[in-house]
Amino acid sequence: MNKNSSNIMALTPNTSNKRETVCIFGTGDFGRALGHKMIQSGYPVVYGSRSTQMSNLIPKDAEVLSHAEAAQKAAVIIIAIQRQHYNFLTPLAEVLHGKVLVDISNNLKLNQYPESNAEYLAQLLPGSKVVKAFNTVSAWALQSGTLDASRQVFVCGDDAEAKQMVMNIVRALGLTPLDQGSLLAAQEIENYPLQLFPMWKFPIFLSLGLTAFFFFYCLALDIIYTYIYENKNFSFFIAITIPNRICPVVALILLALVYLPGVLAAIIQLYRGTKYRRFPDWLDKWMLCRKQLGLIALAFASLHVLYTLVMPIRAFVSWRTGKGIISQALNNKTEPLNNTNAWLSDSYLALGILGYFLFVLLGITSLPSVSNNVNWREFRFVQSKLGYLALIFCTAHTLVYGGKWFLSPSAYRWYLPNIYMLALIIPCAVLVVKFVLIFPCVDKPLTQIRQGWERNPKYSE
Amino acid sequence: MNKNSSNIMALTPNTSNKRETVCIFGTGDFGRALGHKMIQSGYPVVYGSRSTQMSNLIPKDAEVLSHAEAAQKAAVIIIAIQRQHYNFLTPLAEVLHGKVLVDISNNLKLNQYPESNAEYLAQLLPGSKVVKAFNTVSAWALQSGTLDASRQVFVCGDDAEAKQMVMNIVRALGLTPLDQGSLLAAQEIENYPLQLFPMWKFPIFLSLGLTAFFFFYCLALDIIYTYIYENKNFSFFIAITIPNRICPVVALILLALVYLPGVLAAIIQLYRGTKYRRFPDWLDKWMLCRKQLGLIALAFASLHVLYTLVMPIRAFVSWRTGKGIISQALNNKTEPLNNTNAWLSDSYLALGILGYFLFVLLGITSLPSVSNNVNWREFRFVQSKLGYLALIFCTAHTLVYGGKWFLSPSAYRWYLPNIYMLALIIPCAVLVVKFVLIFPCVDKPLTQIRQGWERNPKYSE
Amino acid sequence: MNKNSSNIMALTPNTSNKRETVCIFGTGDFGRALGHKMIQSGYPVVYGSRSTQMSNLIPKDAEVLSHAEAAQKAAVIIIAIQRQHYNFLTPLAEVLHGKVLVDISNNLKLNQYPESNAEYLAQLLPGSKVVKAFNTVSAWALQSGTLDASRQVFVCGDDAEAKQMVMNIVRALGLTPLDQGSLLAAQEIENYPLQLFPMWKFPIFLSLGLTAFFFFYCLALDIIYTYIYENKNFSFFIAITIPNRICPVVALILLALVYLPGVLAAIIQLYRGTKYRRFPDWLDKWMLCRKQLGLIALAFASLHVLYTLVMPIRAFVSWRTGKGIISQALNNKTEPLNNTNAWLSDSYLALGILGYFLFVLLGITSLPSVSNNVNWREFRFVQSKLGYLALIFCTAHTLVYGGKWFLSPSAYRWYLPNIYMLALIIPCAVLVVKFVLIFPCVDKPLTQIRQGWERNPKYSE
Repeated sequence: MNKNSSNIMALTPNTSNKRETVCIFGTGDFGRALGHKMIQSGYPVVYGSRSTQMSNLIPKDAEVLSHAEAAQKAAVIIIAIQRQHYNFLTPLAEVLHGKVLVDISNNLKLNQYPESNAEYLAQLLPGSKVVKAFNTVSAWALQSGTLDASRQVFVCGDDAEAKQMVMNIVRALGLTPLDQGSLLAAQEIENYPLQLFPMWKFPIFLSLGLTAFFFFYCLALDIIYTYIYENKNFSFFIAITIPNRICPVVALILLALVYLPGVLAAIIQLYRGTKYRRFPDWLDKWMLCRKQLGLIALAFASLHVLYTLVMPIRAFVSWRTGKGIISQALNNKTEPLNNTNAWLSDSYLALGILGYFLFVLLGITSLPSVSNNVNWREFRFVQSKLGYLALIFCTAHTLVYGGKWFLSPSAYRWYLPNIYMLALIIPCAVLVVKFVLIFPCVDKPLTQIRQGWERNPKYSE
Repeated sequence: MNKNSSNIMALTPNTSNKRETVCIFGTGDFGRALGHKMIQSGYPVVYGSRSTQMSNLIPKDAEVLSHAEAAQKAAVIIIAIQRQHYNFLTPLAEVLHGKVLVDISNNLKLNQYPESNAEYLAQLLPGSKVVKAFNTVSAWALQSGTLDASRQVFVCGDDAEAKQMVMNIVRALGLTPLDQGSLLAAQEIENYPLQLFPMWKFPIFLSLGLTAFFFFYCLALDIIYTYIYENKNFSFFIAITIPNRICPVVALILLALVYLPGVLAAIIQLYRGTKYRRFPDWLDKWMLCRKQLGLIALAFASLHVLYTLVMPIRAFVSWRTGKGIISQALNNKTEPLNNTNAWLSDSYLALGILGYFLFVLLGITSLPSVSNNVNWREFRFVQSKLGYLALIFCTAHTLVYGGKWFLSPSAYRWYLPNIYMLALIIPCAVLVVKFVLIFPCVDKPLTQIRQGWERNPKYSE
Repeated sequence: MNKNSSNIMALTPNTSNKRETVCIFGTGDFGRALGHKMIQSGYPVVYGSRSTQMSNLIPKDAEVLSHAEAAQKAAVIIIAIQRQHYNFLTPLAEVLHGKVLVDISNNLKLNQYPESNAEYLAQLLPGSKVVKAFNTVSAWALQSGTLDASRQVFVCGDDAEAKQMVMNIVRALGLTPLDQGSLLAAQEIENYPLQLFPMWKFPIFLSLGLTAFFFFYCLALDIIYTYIYENKNFSFFIAITIPNRICPVVALILLALVYLPGVLAAIIQLYRGTKYRRFPDWLDKWMLCRKQLGLIALAFASLHVLYTLVMPIRAFVSWRTGKGIISQALNNKTEPLNNTNAWLSDSYLALGILGYFLFVLLGITSLPSVSNNVNWREFRFVQSKLGYLALIFCTAHTLVYGGKWFLSPSAYRWYLPNIYMLALIIPCAVLVVKFVLIFPCVDKPLTQIRQGWERNPKYSE
C-alpha cells in the first residue's frame, strides 16, 4: 500500500508550470509528428531509438537516447513502433516496470489479431500500465494542425491514474480525450480508424441499385420509346426530367424500407408468440441500418425538391408553357379554370410539402447532438409517429400525382407500368400492414409480447 | 482506512480479460433484457429471485439463485424490482453491506414520491453504495440492439468507486455513461424518461391556436366571402393559398414573441430600478421557452418558403398567368414594365430571403452541438443582434408585401382588416419599444441595473 | 499520508441530502448572482466581505461575515473579486490552507497578464487548492435562468478531489462541467469568453471585400452602363438580380480558396522534398480557417439558390416572359424547341443542383456533433473527395451557364470581362493543379514525403 500511494504522489501533476518529460519509443513518422506537437505544447521529449544517429529527422529540441536510458527519464512512454516489434520490449521489462506505456498502434485490417495490440502489450509487460490512445489521430493532421475532424482521442486502460496522466497530455495538445473504460475497449478503438462508413455500405449500394434500375426504365420509356414511336428527341431529359422522376421514387421506396423491418418484426413476434428469440440475421442487420436508409431517402427527397423547384426556370418548360398560351391566343379563346385540376395540383403539392417538411424534421432529430438531448419516449414519438405521418403524406403525394396515369392506357408504353406504380407497391404494403397492426385485437397481444409475456413458453427453452 | 483501501483494491478492474460477475435482482422484463445484453458483452450473470423455478424466460447462460446467494457472488447488484417491493431488501442488509446497488427503477408519474427511488434505497440500506443508472434505456431497445437514440446512460451516486464500476459496465454494453454527480441528481434522472417535450408544450399549443384562428379568418374572408359575393368557388385555396397566408403570419408573430419577453423584462427592470427581484412567473416561463418558440417560428417560415416556391408550378397560377397574357395578346398591346411594381416585388422577395437566411442561421446556432461550441458573448451576438436583424427583415418583408392593401378599401372585406395587418401588430410593437430602449438615456440606466446597481435599494429588503 | 487521507474523507460528499456550505468572497454582481443560484439549488451560502453592512443587495438567506470567519465555515471558497485585489488574500493564507479556492475571474483583454489569474492565485496561496471555473458563465444568464448557450462550465485544477467537488457544485446548479485538466489550461479558459468568433474574422472580411468589389463591378456594368448607353432604368436590379450574380461568384471563389492552400502546401512540400519544415505563417493560418471559408461559401451558395428559385415569382421576370410570348403570338408563329438551348439550360441547372447538394452534405458533416462521429478516414473522404466533386460541379455549372458570354463581344461592356469569367479564374487554377498532382509521377513522391521520407535530409538540420 505504501509503495503504491507514494507512486500516486509521483504521478500527480505538479502545480508548477513545468510539463513532465515524455519518452517516445520509435522515430517513425507518427513518433516524430507526436514529438513535434508535444514540444510545441511545452513537453520535454526524449526519443528511445536503436540508433541514436538519425537525429536529423527528429525534432531539434528532442533528445535521442537508447531505449533503456530514454525510458528512465520519463513516467510516460509512448510506444510508436509496430506490433510485430513489441517483443523487443520484453528485455526492458525491468526498466518499464510501473511506467505508463501508451499504445498508439493501428492495424492494417479489422480484427487482424485475436487480441488488441494494447492487450498484447499488457500481456508482454504485466508490470507496466498500458493505456491505449492517439491511434485515431492522423500524423499529417497532427503536424499541420488541421485537426478539424478527429479532435477526439479515445483513451482506455486498466489503471485510472495512468489513464488520467495520458488524458492530461491529450488535453495539453489541444485534443479532447474520451475515456472508453478498461483495456477491453482497445479492440474497438483499434478497429475504429479502419472503418469507412460501415453502416452506410448496404443502404448506399441498395439506393445506387434502385437508381440504376429506374434510370434505365425511364430511359427506355421516356426517351427511346418517344424517339422510336413519336420521332422526338428528348435526350435532354437525362439532365433533369429523368432524375426528377427517379429521386422521388427511390426516396419513397427507401422510406418505406425504413418502416418495413419494424412491421416484419411485429409479424414474427406475433407468430412466435415471444420476444425472447432472436430475429433472423438479415432482419437484425436491416433494423440497424434504418437510420442510414432514412437519411439517404431524405437526400433523394431533397434532390427531388430542388429538381422540382427549378422547373419553371428550365428553357424546355418555358417553351412548353409559351406554346400552350400562344395556341390559346391564336384560337382567340381562354380556357376557364378547371377546378378539379386546381384541386389535384394544389393537393399533391401540399402533401409533398408537408411530407418533406416532416422528413426534414426526422433528419434533424437524427443528428447526434439532437438525439442525445431527447429521451427514449420523445425519440420514439418523433421517429415512429411523425415518421409514419411522413410516409403517409409522401405516399398520398405520389398517389394523387400519379393517379391520373393509372387508368389511362397511354401510360402503359410497351405494356410496362408507369414508374409511379412501381414506387407505390412497398409503401402501400407497409401502410396496410401497419394499419392492421394497430387494430386492438392485434395490438393487444403484441404489446403483451413486447412486455415479456409469452404465448408458448416452451419456445424459449 | 485500511479496510477502505483494501476494498478499493477489490473494486479495480482486473487486467485479465475476464469480466466480473454481475447480479440482477428480479426477473421482470427489464431485468431479463439487461441480463441478455450483459451475457452478450461477456459478463457472467446471476439472477436473484424468490422462486428459482421460472428459468425458461431467463437467458440460458445465467444462473438463478436465491437473493442472498446471488448477492454474495457479485460486487455489483442490479435492483430490477419496483420501488414498492424495496422493503423486502432490508433483511438482506447484512449481505448487501459494501455492495454496489444499481437502482434502475422508473416511476409512472413525475415526482411521484417525495424522494427519488435511489435515495429511498440508500436510506433503506445505508451500508450499501447506491448508484442510479440505466433507467433511461428502453428494454425493447436493449434487446433489439436498436439504440439509435438514448445511448446515453445517466449515472449518479455518492461513492466514486462504485460509480466508476457501473460506468465501466455501461461502456462495456456499448452505451455512453454520463456522470451526473451525487445521488441528489437521482430525482431528475428518474423524471427524465417520463417527459414528452415538456418545454415544447406551450409553444406548440400557442402556434396551433394561432394557426386555427387564422385558418378560420382566411376561410371566411378568402373562400366564403368570395363564394357569397363574387360567386366563385376557390375551395382549393385550402390546400396551398391559405396555408401560405397562415404560415408567414404565425411565423412572424412567434418570432416577435421570442423577443417580446426580453423587452418586457427590460421595462420591468427599469420600472423597479433593480434586477434583484424575481420576474413574474409567467415571464420567467416565457423566457425559458423562447428557443422553442423560435424554432417553431422557423418551421412555419420554412413551410412558407416551400409554399411560395411551388407557386409557379400550381395549375391555378399557370392558368391565371396564361389568362393575363392572352388578354393582353387579344388586345394587341403589351404593357410596359411598371418600375414601381418591379421595385416592390423584388424588394419584398429580397427582404424575405435575407430574413429567412438569418432565421436559418439562428436555427443552426441553436443546435446543441453548435451552441456548445460558442461562448456566451458569441451566442448573445448571434441570438440578439442577428435575431433582431431577422425580425426587422421579416417585418419589412410583410410591410412591403402587404402595404398595398392597407389603404385600399377592397381589402376590408366584412370590415375586417387584412391578415397581414394583424400579423404586424406585435412585431412592430416589439421593434418600436426596442428602438426606444437603445436610446442612450434609457440604455444607460438599464445597463447599470443589469450590472447590479439599484435605484431604490429598499426594494430588495 | 495520514493527514492527506483524512482530508479526502472530509471532502467526499455526504450521503445525506444536505448540501455543504459554500463561501463566496466578494459581494459584486457575479458573486451575488452565483449566491442566488446556489441558494436556489439548496446550498447554504456565506459571504465574506470587508463591510458586513451592505446586506440589502445580498440574497436574503445568505450570511455575511468577515473574510476569515466566512472562510472557516466552508470547504469551498469562491473568489468573486478582481485579480488586482488578490493580494489582500495573502494574510488569510493560514485560514485558506487546504481549502478549495474557485477562481471565477475574467480579464478585459486577451492575455492581459503573463500568467492566468488562477495560476497567480495558486502562487499567492500555495497551501490552497485552486480550481478555475464559472468564468464562462454570464451573471445575467445565471440570474434569469436563460442559460440556453453556455451550460458548459470549463473546470481545471491540479487537485483532483478539489476539482471533483467544484464539478459537483456545477452539476447541482444545472450546468455541465467540462474537465479541462490541470491549472495550465486556465489561461485558455480565461481567454475563451473574450473571443468573438476569432476564426471567422478573416473569412468574413474576405467575403465582405469580395462582395463589395463585385457589387460595384455589377453596378457599373449592369445598371450604370445600361442607363447611359441604352437609357433604361434597371435600378431595381439592386434587390435581386445583382445579389444573385454576386452570391454564386463569391461562393465559388471562396470554395476554391478552401482547396487552394492544400494544393499550395503540396507544391511547397514537393519543392522542399520534406514535410518537416513549417509552412509559411500565412499558409498555416489559411489552412486553419478553411472550414470557416467553406461555411461562408455555403451561405452564399444558399442565398444564390433562394434568389434563383424566386425568379419566376418576380414581377420583372413575369413581365419579360409575357412580353416574349405576346410578341410571338402577335407575329402569329411559335418558335420550335431549341434542343441545344434545352440541353444547356437543363445541364447547368442539374450541375448546380448536384454541386449544391454535395456542398450542403459537406456543411452537415462539419457540424461538430457529426464530425465527432466520423473517423479521420471518413472525414477526409467527405471533405476531400466529395469536396473536390462539389468544386468540379460548381465550376462546370458556372462554365456552362456563363459559357455563351465568353465569345460574344456584347458581353465586354467597357472592355471589362463578364463577372463569370473573373469567378472562374481561381477554381480552374485549383482544379488544373490538383489534376496535375494526382498524376502518378507527381503523386508518388508526394505520398512518400507525407509518410516522412526526405529527398534532401540536409534541410531539416
